[in-house]
This record gives sequence, C-alpha cells and structure tokens, in this order.
Amino acid sequence: MIPIITAFERSPDRGQGQARDMRVRWALEEVGQPYDVRLVSFEAMREPVHLALQPFGQIPTWEEGDLTLFESGAIVLHIAERHAGLLPQDANARARAIAWMFAALNTMEPPIFDRTIARILERDEPWYEQRLAVLEGRIRKRLGELAARLGEADWLDGEFSAGDLLMVTVLRRLNGSELLEEQPNLAAYVARGEARPAFGRAFDAQLAVFTAASKRESGSGGRI
Amino acid sequence: MIPIITAFERSPDRGQGQARDMRVRWALEEVGQPYDVRLVSFEAMREPVHLALQPFGQIPTWEEGDLTLFESGAIVLHIAERHAGLLPQDANARARAIAWMFAALNTMEPPIFDRTIARILERDEPWYEQRLAVLEGRIRKRLGELAARLGEADWLDGEFSAGDLLMVTVLRRLNGSELLEEQPNLAAYVARGEARPAFGRAFDAQLAVFTAASKRESGSGGRI
Repeated sequence: MIPIITAFERSPDRGQGQARDMRVRWALEEVGQPYDVRLVSFEAMREPVHLALQPFGQIPTWEEGDLTLFESGAIVLHIAERHAGLLPQDANARARAIAWMFAALNTMEPPIFDRTIARILERDEPWYEQRLAVLEGRIRKRLGELAARLGEADWLDGEFSAGDLLMVTVLRRLNGSELLEEQPNLAAYVARGEARPAFGRAFDAQLAVFTAASKRESGSGGRI
Repeated sequence: MIPIITAFERSPDRGQGQARDMRVRWALEEVGQPYDVRLVSFEAMREPVHLALQPFGQIPTWEEGDLTLFESGAIVLHIAERHAGLLPQDANARARAIAWMFAALNTMEPPIFDRTIARILERDEPWYEQRLAVLEGRIRKRLGELAARLGEADWLDGEFSAGDLLMVTVLRRLNGSELLEEQPNLAAYVARGEARPAFGRAFDAQLAVFTAASKRESGSGGRI
C-alpha cells in the first residue's frame, strides 16, 4: 500500500524545502518507501475535509489504509518504526535517537521557527530589531550547546538516525544566516545531511512542485 | 531498577507543577513505576556533569541503568512504551496517540511557552503589550482548533493516553488566563486531567520539593 502525504500546492519558500513535508519525504526516501502526494491549497487547508485529517489546518498529513496521522515528527517516527534505517536496533540507542527527535522539535525548533515567523510577520513592527536580537540570542545559546555536544562527530549519537533527520531540517531554517556559520561543526553537519542521496531525492521532489506551479503561472494557457 | 529523574532544586513557579519534570512524574504515577528524584540547582545545571546528561542544561533527565535520556516528551514516550496504560494496544490508535504527543509539544506548546517567556523576560520592553497581543492571537487560533477537534469527548482520541498527558501539561500553562476559559471544553479537559489520581500524586510530589525548600529557608536552624 502506497501512503499518501499532503504538501503545499504553492510553496511558500519557493521550493527551498523548508515546509514540513520535506521531513516526511526525506524519511520515506531513506527507507525506500514510495509515496504519493496530494497537493492542497491554502484555502483547502481550512476546509472540513482537510481539518478532519489535520485539526490545525497544516501539512503534512499521512494516509495509509485506514490510518491517518498528522505532525511531521509523528509521521517520521511512524516510518522509522516500520522500516529499517532510521532507528538503531539496540533498545537504548533507539530511545536516545528518539530523544534527539524531541530535542529537534521541542528545544531547537521553537526559537528558530520564531525567528522565521518574526522575519515574515513582524518586520514592520517598531520593535522588530530589538526583538530579533533577543530571539537570535536564544538561538545562539541553543546552537552553542548543540555544537558542544556534537563536537567532531558526524551525527548526534552514532549512526545517522531520525533524530539527525529532524535536527538537520530544523537547522536548515538558518541556512545562509550568520547564526549557523558561527558554529562550523553544525554548518558541516547540515551539509552532511543535505549531501545524503535520500535528501537530494526528497528535495528535488518538493522543488518540482514549485517549478511546475511556476511554469503553470507563467506559461501560456496554463492554469492558475 | 528504580529510574532516577532530575528536577529543579528551587521551583521557579513556586510548586505550581509547570516545570517539565511534572510530565514525567505524572507518567510514572499513571503506570505505577516508583522513581527517585535528584534535585539540581540552576548552577549545577550548567556544570559538565549535568550537561553530559542534558546537553541544553535543562531538567528533567532520566537515568535507568546504563540508559540516560533527556527531553520530557521522549522520556514520557519511553515510559509509555514499556508499561501498559499510556498508549493503546491497537497499532493505529497507538500511532495516533503519539501524533497527539508531538502536537502537544511542537504545535501547541511553542506559542504558549512563548507567552510564558514574554511575561517573564519582556514585561519591561516597550513592545510588550503589542507583542503579547500578537502571541495571544496565535494561541487563541490554536486553542480554537483544538477545541473544535476535542468537541464533547473526554480525551483527544479514545482512552486517556500519553498524548492527553502532554497536552494537559501544555494547556496548564494557561491556567487562570482568559485564553483557556474562552474554550470551556478545553478548560474542562484540563480539569479532567488534573483530577486523575496519578496527576494528584505527581503534583503533590513536586510541590513537596518547593515546600521543603521554603521551610529550610524560613525555618530556624535550617540549611541556607
């Protein structure tokens, strides 16, 4: 059975792979599981049929027979539990890899995502510069702690795991910022993740959605 | 083997149970697993010995033989996987309960925790009132979506699960605020969680740490 995920019909980041379907696509590519994608518009995401799948009107979702799931972290864990390659066999190592999944989403992502949101929604507010400095201070603190833990290792705890997969997608939100460059081992860690063939296939697949949409909009006789 | 968790030596919330050890204590009480607690000072949390357990210098941590874990969500999941009572037996229902764990920590908690942080750290900033209004707007949106999904049900998906446990601890950060009261079914949901005997035992245990510390500080002949 081929699972179906949802993704944005129109990429808000112009195909940079920052939307959360990227995490699920990457996990699926790592384990070699084919999947289908249903694209949803921003309007359709607020409709009852989508809210039944995703109560917060977001993407991605997961449909596999009579199972539906939401939350990218939960979907990645679901994939990792059912296929080899994203979680260690050893029970303790597996629990630690899952701890890194939660660290990525509950410790690292909130301040990093706040910065993304502030840069979009608060740029014209009188407090923007001050607020950004506060946020970046919080992010720097977490990056410093993470860099200290990673040290010279390739991955956070032994082999590449779902914890690294989520952490790399979270840190990628800082691509091109000084924040990430200030920690060379973290910048190299992100690059190491992005160099994985499965990442490349997932990235290309989500970019193709944006490219196709752009062609439709600029082409002759295309839909809009 | 009795697991050991860490908790704040001095409760920043004066024993209201908002620190993240509360989640782990509650989970342990739900499944009937005894545990030991090691209290750590704010200074000790920045020391190498603690950072080896928790790279971000936070609590709680988990020590059980040669396994150490951090991240409250990961610890609750670890407990839920090893004891009956916090995850359904059915595989699909289990995956959905885990999705609610991630929803609690990655969708609901970030804006709610931002408000907690803003009320502590940004109260004297010139932008505070405007910023609080923006944050509360984001929280209201999420609470409305969650309330719509919960409806008249007791718990988010069938029986009480680790997803409810984490969601209740996240929503409790809004106790006493109008935000939670605006959604009566969510206020009742939180009250339902707090009424569970296991919650009560966990709450009393963390409150006892604060009470003991207060007595030591105010008493005659006490330490400090």
